[in-house]
Amino acid sequence: MSTDTRAIVDELHRAYREGDGERVAALVHDDIDWCIYGPARIFPFEGPRRGKAQVMEVLAAIGGQFELTRYEPEVVIVEGDRAAAMVKTSFVQRSTGRILSLRLVNMLRVADGRVIEFKEFSDTFDVVEQAMGSWLEVPAIAV
Amino acid sequence: MSTDTRAIVDELHRAYREGDGERVAALVHDDIDWCIYGPARIFPFEGPRRGKAQVMEVLAAIGGQFELTRYEPEVVIVEGDRAAAMVKTSFVQRSTGRILSLRLVNMLRVADGRVIEFKEFSDTFDVVEQAMGSWLEVPAIAV
Repeated sequence: MSTDTRAIVDELHRAYREGDGERVAALVHDDIDWCIYGPARIFPFEGPRRGKAQVMEVLAAIGGQFELTRYEPEVVIVEGDRAAAMVKTSFVQRSTGRILSLRLVNMLRVADGRVIEFKEFSDTFDVVEQAMGSWLEVPAIAV
Repeated sequence: MSTDTRAIVDELHRAYREGDGERVAALVHDDIDWCIYGPARIFPFEGPRRGKAQVMEVLAAIGGQFELTRYEPEVVIVEGDRAAAMVKTSFVQRSTGRILSLRLVNMLRVADGRVIEFKEFSDTFDVVEQAMGSWLEVPAIAV
């Protein structure tokens, strides 16, 4: 079972890196529970989603704003039907040409040979600053 | 080996939840490679650290600002000497009484019965807003 999980996660990473939407779709469970954690008022593709159709819309929205230029899994941990991956990524912001470099961490679960749970984390404060091309102004936080 | 890794990670979670600094210290490798990803200009305890002494300073700094009130591992994945954990947490900001609720994801590696690699991710944009008690003002990002 671990082997299957790893094969599915590896294939998902390859398909996504190669921009192969059909292969990605084939690996997404119809009933997937999905969330990219982050500010949806800034990146509308962030936040919770349910089901393959919503997830494919999210991936299309990301691809509309950002061109993926690097997707390098550094660590992939598999146990049973679950996996975690830490991935070095770079994207070009299409509207500005800015290059965003960030680490993603994905927590996944597979069922029926597909990904049925996907939760993605990144340092979103840093990602927003990279996308703006400037520092966020933060009032002093009482400490 | 997997069993040892899980036992070490579980014990680290328990010791941290119970605020037992000595037990935490005993589980931290002298040569640990550590990073809490996030804006160090806002939370000085974030960013990379090396070695047990620096890590114990980080934990003391976090404890100075925040009282941990919840630390619930939802998912712990172990493979060989590596582990990943997704944890529901709540903290009270001591200076304001504000309650911060967030999910952490930790990527760990153990060696010599201790944690030698620790990388922590969270939705830092959201965490900063929770700590401020107000929304960050973000200029429109070109899309």
